[in-house]
Amino acid sequence: MIKIAVDAMGTDSAPYPEIEGAVMAIKESPDLVIHLVGNYTILSEKQKKYTFDKERLGVVNAEEKIEMDEKASEALRKRGKSSIAVGLELLKRGEVDGFISAGNTGAIMAFSLKILGRIEGVKRPAIGALLPTLQGQTLLVDAGANSLAKVEHLYQFAVMGANFIKFAKKKEKPKVALLSIGEEATKGNLLIIEAQRLLKLRSDLFEFVGNIEGNNILEGKTDVVVTDGFTGNVLLKFGEGVLEAVAQLAKEEVKKNILATLAAILLKPSFYRLKKKLHYEEYGGAPLLGVDGIVVISHGRSTSKAIKNAILLAKRLVESDLNRHIKEEIIKSLSTSKSE
Amino acid sequence: MIKIAVDAMGTDSAPYPEIEGAVMAIKESPDLVIHLVGNYTILSEKQKKYTFDKERLGVVNAEEKIEMDEKASEALRKRGKSSIAVGLELLKRGEVDGFISAGNTGAIMAFSLKILGRIEGVKRPAIGALLPTLQGQTLLVDAGANSLAKVEHLYQFAVMGANFIKFAKKKEKPKVALLSIGEEATKGNLLIIEAQRLLKLRSDLFEFVGNIEGNNILEGKTDVVVTDGFTGNVLLKFGEGVLEAVAQLAKEEVKKNILATLAAILLKPSFYRLKKKLHYEEYGGAPLLGVDGIVVISHGRSTSKAIKNAILLAKRLVESDLNRHIKEEIIKSLSTSKSE
Repeated sequence: MIKIAVDAMGTDSAPYPEIEGAVMAIKESPDLVIHLVGNYTILSEKQKKYTFDKERLGVVNAEEKIEMDEKASEALRKRGKSSIAVGLELLKRGEVDGFISAGNTGAIMAFSLKILGRIEGVKRPAIGALLPTLQGQTLLVDAGANSLAKVEHLYQFAVMGANFIKFAKKKEKPKVALLSIGEEATKGNLLIIEAQRLLKLRSDLFEFVGNIEGNNILEGKTDVVVTDGFTGNVLLKFGEGVLEAVAQLAKEEVKKNILATLAAILLKPSFYRLKKKLHYEEYGGAPLLGVDGIVVISHGRSTSKAIKNAILLAKRLVESDLNRHIKEEIIKSLSTSKSE
Repeated sequence: MIKIAVDAMGTDSAPYPEIEGAVMAIKESPDLVIHLVGNYTILSEKQKKYTFDKERLGVVNAEEKIEMDEKASEALRKRGKSSIAVGLELLKRGEVDGFISAGNTGAIMAFSLKILGRIEGVKRPAIGALLPTLQGQTLLVDAGANSLAKVEHLYQFAVMGANFIKFAKKKEKPKVALLSIGEEATKGNLLIIEAQRLLKLRSDLFEFVGNIEGNNILEGKTDVVVTDGFTGNVLLKFGEGVLEAVAQLAKEEVKKNILATLAAILLKPSFYRLKKKLHYEEYGGAPLLGVDGIVVISHGRSTSKAIKNAILLAKRLVESDLNRHIKEEIIKSLSTSKSE
């Protein structure tokens, strides 16, 4: 049995997506036990409308919810009884094997660092975001854990990301690219040049395919795209913004003409499938790589399906023993980069 | 009469879009004179299929073309007779008032710096890219001129961008935002915090509306979004990549079903208009802000309409005397930030 704690106070419509996602997950996966972490009275009441195996879906009480706009530093001081803190404590004590939350990302990171700490040798944890591409998925790392990155951080992001692909996605020798702005401009950016040198050292673990530009990411030709958390976060959010703007403008265009309106109705199922392909809801969550415990961060707007997918992702990370592999490879990387 | 030099070796399909764009521009704008810069024999021959006022559209000979993949540093040494260098020399000597090119961006920047130099007080030139948004346009600056930015550069990008909006777009008190990754993460990024402090100093010139996240840019609530050139370039190109991926996936979806295929045919005019709204071709070009002369950079895939729009943009920048205003405001900014 693999045990996952689920923050039941994370999504914008909590606790429904969390309860429903958990119910879906235990139905889909017979060797899974879930602890919903949140207000015991409320959760016990709301759970009643679902039928499920009570041995495999329980509730752990946590009274406090960390709001989305709360500052992580303040939450860290004041919110030791929050669902995020309580869930991570369960993980630290070994009562569960993994934790997922759709709550305040800054708070999840801060409490993960405080309660779990980093994997030995890891300098900075990083968020790995799975992007849907024209060919499968690409892991963007760091998607926002650190706002500034040094060369050795980028190097470790590559090592952690490659391990994720190798063990959670079962793909040998992942292809890793470094996000940059073209050959020439790179010349001026010492960080990128130095990172390139380091990334070439780990050809045993991954294939470094060189720099990639922003417009090539979604072609899906690489498994991992490495960047600093500032760029990664801005990129990811801009992508969301572009999709929203396109949808909005398309709606306005179509409304201008009765024939187009009718045609659009016929196309609804196609658009729905397209949206599904592109939407974060389908991908469940982003692993927080480098902390000493399996933690998956979901989008605040997650649906029950997204929560289910995040739970199943956490389970896969536990099963693949991701963090043991990261630890081994990080130690190997430290000696490789030193011996250079 | 305003005189603009047009690099006729820049676009992927040069010299057609350049010749056609120039012909369109002088027809649309009676007080415009254009010099196409490129191979005299070829241009004179190709021009024959167009009818236009020969007094207002001439050719200046330049034998060499700088390839798109040529390194700027090498081009700078070897390509003094290129269309880019010759066009910028015309501008330097005052024989024209502005220069536009759809060629190698790195080479345009390098030659602009060498031949024109910077406006007094400007530390780094920046590329300003006009993004189509849900409400008009937003200027993203820097879109890729510098791969690393210091606080004073971000500050100057804001001042130059605000001047562009004020004088080229005739909008008083432009709204300026600073690209960041949310309130909390910002705490760790000293560059952003320090830039915020400086941006508040210029409330005489623009309204600083605070930080903006990637997903909010295309809402179009601000006139200028300030960021470093690495982030700006990656963002812009990722946006292109997202649009291409959406178009590709939509095509695949629609093909799955005969009814959807028919519906899509009916929607073609709507999609075409949508594409026009979003496409860089409609926006002509990006001003290279901070060099001592009006330079507009166009996309390598520019159509004749895009070239025409770039020419008209350059003309507008000349008419509004943008660089004089930038110079005045930069000098004012230098004293403002020092007195703090």
